Amino acid sequence: MTLEQHITSARDRVEEFIAHYFSQSLATDKRLSDAMHYSLTIGGKRLRPFLVYTTGEMYNANLNDLDVLAAAIECIHTYSLIHDDLPAMDDDALRRGRPTCHIAFDEATAILAGDALQTLAFELISNHPFDVPAENVLAMFKVLTKATGMLGMAGGQAMDIAATNTPISLAQLESIHTLKTGALLQASIELGALCGRDVPEQDLKHLRDFGQKIGLAFQVQDDILDIIGDTFTLGKPQGSDQELNKSTYPAHLGLDGAKQFANQLVNESLYALDEMSRNSETLKQLARFIIERDH
Amino acid sequence: MTLEQHITSARDRVEEFIAHYFSQSLATDKRLSDAMHYSLTIGGKRLRPFLVYTTGEMYNANLNDLDVLAAAIECIHTYSLIHDDLPAMDDDALRRGRPTCHIAFDEATAILAGDALQTLAFELISNHPFDVPAENVLAMFKVLTKATGMLGMAGGQAMDIAATNTPISLAQLESIHTLKTGALLQASIELGALCGRDVPEQDLKHLRDFGQKIGLAFQVQDDILDIIGDTFTLGKPQGSDQELNKSTYPAHLGLDGAKQFANQLVNESLYALDEMSRNSETLKQLARFIIERDH
Repeated sequence: MTLEQHITSARDRVEEFIAHYFSQSLATDKRLSDAMHYSLTIGGKRLRPFLVYTTGEMYNANLNDLDVLAAAIECIHTYSLIHDDLPAMDDDALRRGRPTCHIAFDEATAILAGDALQTLAFELISNHPFDVPAENVLAMFKVLTKATGMLGMAGGQAMDIAATNTPISLAQLESIHTLKTGALLQASIELGALCGRDVPEQDLKHLRDFGQKIGLAFQVQDDILDIIGDTFTLGKPQGSDQELNKSTYPAHLGLDGAKQFANQLVNESLYALDEMSRNSETLKQLARFIIERDH
Repeated sequence: MTLEQHITSARDRVEEFIAHYFSQSLATDKRLSDAMHYSLTIGGKRLRPFLVYTTGEMYNANLNDLDVLAAAIECIHTYSLIHDDLPAMDDDALRRGRPTCHIAFDEATAILAGDALQTLAFELISNHPFDVPAENVLAMFKVLTKATGMLGMAGGQAMDIAATNTPISLAQLESIHTLKTGALLQASIELGALCGRDVPEQDLKHLRDFGQKIGLAFQVQDDILDIIGDTFTLGKPQGSDQELNKSTYPAHLGLDGAKQFANQLVNESLYALDEMSRNSETLKQLARFIIERDH
């Protein structure tokens, strides 16, 4: 399979799982359930599910287990997008070319939809009969909560808000993105591995390093695309980071410097996979794709 | 011990746990961490922690296990209060006589503090080495996520918002409160029992019935107090439900009818405990207290 086929396959699987879940679920409040479903299906590359599947498959994980984790991580990611888009946060009206949740529904519903999506992530995991020991399932909660909360994504978002209109150092910018974006990408890889069989401790370490590097590379490339991309391809107004006066890698390093840095991170991520016990070619292709993508 | 001493002891334990947690935690963003801590320590009866401790102690649970669950459920409860108070929701400036989170900090921080408190609830559970089998810990996640999400508290809040300015039936009002308030009170009792030793299946059933009845009684009494209480005792403007044009039990049943209904629910809750295998006197006292309290 080509990388593109892998990406499509992961996207199709997780989207089918989500569609099935919402067709079965007994919604107490239809508007809330519709808003959650709307935002979950607003599209996107489904990069996090891809990482869950790819890593899990390297270690012969049960595909049904991976479906649950792929959907859970997408619930967390989607909750964060809904709340980031709110008027009190980034105040974005468009997300991937479609109205954001609080525009398509209303602000109260968007807040609740984000809240309930966060819970749903943990609920999906707690309700699934995983094909691995209960200790592994507890470890999944540990990995996912750390990546999501105050010491992960939410902490990064708070730091990002505090940094708006304020000059920050390159080191601070790196912390923000490592938490805000990197933590969840890294968690996706770890969650996949936690469904696997006989995962060597050394492999886990390499995978974490890999996740950290591509997480940051992904954000640097996002900053670059915010400058050189166009609104149609990005699905959001080009230059929106500049408009919000947010610190970016190109602002710190110049456009060429930022491109070089993204390249360097991808090379380091490839290096991290050099001594893996399994074939990690698909992850390597993904790493290269991160800096080649145009949206 | 008197009921009051039990309540004080539970409150002191959970507040000490929370204080210790925040004194130790490596906050990535101080303002976020401060907002979480501010709202967690804004006071209150700590009824949910009380239920965790009381039920757990009936079955000889490890007190350190109960501390974690008491704090976790208080994190969920506090997250819901922060988000309910937001301008897009109930737009409340006061909570227990103190400025609400978005007034004391700002709206973006309040949204994130609620988000991160929800995560913290699950994070606390996932990081604690419980003195019960891993299967019980997984059951805790199951109980808590169901009570918190779309099919529980968040669903109830969405229904509550939809019902504002709209006439609803008594049955709808009961569904709203069963989900919005009852689910978490019931979960507190189940969580306590999940830390216990040799909990008979029959007891669990009785405890669930008890939790359901007192959850609703609690809400009916809240509606009554909103009419007959005063702002100082309640810590929020008296009559604020009426102002928001929300359906209440007194509006449906009249003040006396609502009082009778609350009484009936408490009697039913006591009846549910009649055949317990353990002494449940403290829970019974609590049930009576619910309709005797004035705030």
